[in-house]
Amino acid sequence: MSEGRDSCIWLNGALLPARLARIDPSDRGLALGDGLFETIRVAGGVPQQVRHHLARLRRGAEQLGIIPPFDDAEILAAFTQTLAANALNDAVLRLTLTRGVGPRGVAPPADARPTLLITAAAWVAPSHALSAIICQSTRRNEFSPLVAIKSLNYLDNIIARREALRRGAEDAILLNTQGHVAEATAANLFLLKNGKWLTPPVTDGALPGVFRARALAGNAACEARISPDDLRAAEGLCFGNALSVLCVSRLDGQEIQTDPAAITELRAILDAKD
Amino acid sequence: MSEGRDSCIWLNGALLPARLARIDPSDRGLALGDGLFETIRVAGGVPQQVRHHLARLRRGAEQLGIIPPFDDAEILAAFTQTLAANALNDAVLRLTLTRGVGPRGVAPPADARPTLLITAAAWVAPSHALSAIICQSTRRNEFSPLVAIKSLNYLDNIIARREALRRGAEDAILLNTQGHVAEATAANLFLLKNGKWLTPPVTDGALPGVFRARALAGNAACEARISPDDLRAAEGLCFGNALSVLCVSRLDGQEIQTDPAAITELRAILDAKD
Repeated sequence: MSEGRDSCIWLNGALLPARLARIDPSDRGLALGDGLFETIRVAGGVPQQVRHHLARLRRGAEQLGIIPPFDDAEILAAFTQTLAANALNDAVLRLTLTRGVGPRGVAPPADARPTLLITAAAWVAPSHALSAIICQSTRRNEFSPLVAIKSLNYLDNIIARREALRRGAEDAILLNTQGHVAEATAANLFLLKNGKWLTPPVTDGALPGVFRARALAGNAACEARISPDDLRAAEGLCFGNALSVLCVSRLDGQEIQTDPAAITELRAILDAKD
Repeated sequence: MSEGRDSCIWLNGALLPARLARIDPSDRGLALGDGLFETIRVAGGVPQQVRHHLARLRRGAEQLGIIPPFDDAEILAAFTQTLAANALNDAVLRLTLTRGVGPRGVAPPADARPTLLITAAAWVAPSHALSAIICQSTRRNEFSPLVAIKSLNYLDNIIARREALRRGAEDAILLNTQGHVAEATAANLFLLKNGKWLTPPVTDGALPGVFRARALAGNAACEARISPDDLRAAEGLCFGNALSVLCVSRLDGQEIQTDPAAITELRAILDAKD
């Protein structure tokens, strides 16, 4: 459990022991997945890339018509409070924004008061190589504006991850409805081809990840459509998000050996400070 | 608000005043939309079609690997308790099942204890005719197994409903990624063509609705692929779910006059008791 017995949660302006933090059962975040989140790496007590994370949260909120009830300065102060209360230095912050409590039904209430929730967990360094499969049980919907925002609707990714575990792998690659590569279940995908890192465009169903944007801006990767055949012929393969860059050493049972220098190049982007 | 100041909620075996019912902020239903729900009409104190609703919930739970923590008899008893505690006779019950509390991350924890939540609201008869649009901002993903289960991932439907409201209508029709008609934002769609009610197949992205199944079983409707052109040429158009059959009197601004006898035929299916 990320929230231990004595952990603290920041909920709508109050720092509370986790056991006292209460989400209303009528919160639309629970009832309909009506909300957004961000996952933020904290290194040496400093939340990384907060400007990018908060900008993406606000873009998503605008798209859904949710007005965040706190400004960026208040949220940054809440991050500091939450980390201090949990005595965490190397950590992961999760910021969740929902439309708030509402009556039954799909239509958003005009007077909803959004819920803003911040939790913190200790940072656990992941193993640096993993096995993956190409997901067969579901597809990423590149026709939905949801691909471009980090919403609470994660069931397709959960279904893909469960398929991976069932098939003896650790993660899954989602294709879009046209069969092009979109992303992994919790990270963007980076394919090494002719010595260059390629990553699928948002129009093919890739979440515009914060790490991905930095890799593109830093010319460490460029956007390109990727097919399952490209994956099978990969010189190298990585999954990257705001927390880590993981090397995929096995895809659908076939070994992939990625040039360590190329991985180091991607990791350097992740490790560069704000 | 569906839950008034004095309403009662049934949560994991306990009947509680709504203000005391607490969802853990780490519940995966909130964090990732990792769960399911059912909406059940209660007429004269009797929940309608519970066998069908509970069967669909269990099919979805099996698909997601969530084990409901109560059996059908216990859930039926909980319905009765919840209705009595809220002094409701004509009502809507909502049953929500989530995977329960879990640590950070997409992978479902092996030891999750699912959350089962029952809320009740008074029945408010809807107006019997509404205006609709064909949604342009998102599509239903017929490639996902989620189309066949009633999951908590409702954001595409919320986006479609918001588009409808923005364009001066009350509801929206979602197309699938290939451009075929799938459903409305909270109901199945029924199109009158050559005097017969047609409804899209699940393979085109229609949720297998409880009312829809009864209409098909009773030969009041049959499955057929429906195009936007079919909608524009409709002799009649209705949205139907477990709560109501609503006539669509205007689509993208164009008037539709549905034969009242045909609507009566569909409503008779809805009104037939268990």
